[in-house]
Amino acid sequence: MFLAQIHVTYKPSILDPQGVAIKNAMHRLSFNEVDAVTQGKYFEVTLNAESKDAAEQQIDSICDTLLANPNMETYRYDVKELANQ
Amino acid sequence: MFLAQIHVTYKPSILDPQGVAIKNAMHRLSFNEVDAVTQGKYFEVTLNAESKDAAEQQIDSICDTLLANPNMETYRYDVKELANQ
Repeated sequence: MFLAQIHVTYKPSILDPQGVAIKNAMHRLSFNEVDAVTQGKYFEVTLNAESKDAAEQQIDSICDTLLANPNMETYRYDVKELANQ
Repeated sequence: MFLAQIHVTYKPSILDPQGVAIKNAMHRLSFNEVDAVTQGKYFEVTLNAESKDAAEQQIDSICDTLLANPNMETYRYDVKELANQ
């Protein structure tokens, strides 16, 4: 059993209006020290696989087909093995 | 300048219908090895602070007041210092 921790974020060239809105909300709440905010998505996926390599391959294609929009977003992930239960 | 990487996720006791929907979508796309999925939010916040402790205190109150719903969600974060620009 493997656990993949996946981060999906906008590519740097893509405008992130949500991040800007959150930053403005922080300034309105007097958190004036905040300089920049970006929001992304975070997934934890538990999956069965024969090896860590196989799990990473699975996660790659899951991200490509479902979790990230390759035109606008980029993803990164860590896969770790869970202790057998 | 400090960078905070913040993860906001549902508390374990809270039902996560979005995670279940994503898992079902994966199964429909023949990723049958997937056992469980949870979705959370991920924020990167850059802020000015005098010290790492001060930055962590800021991030704590930002999470409490704005980024996480304390009834349903829990958060964790890492703060690291950015090289001076």
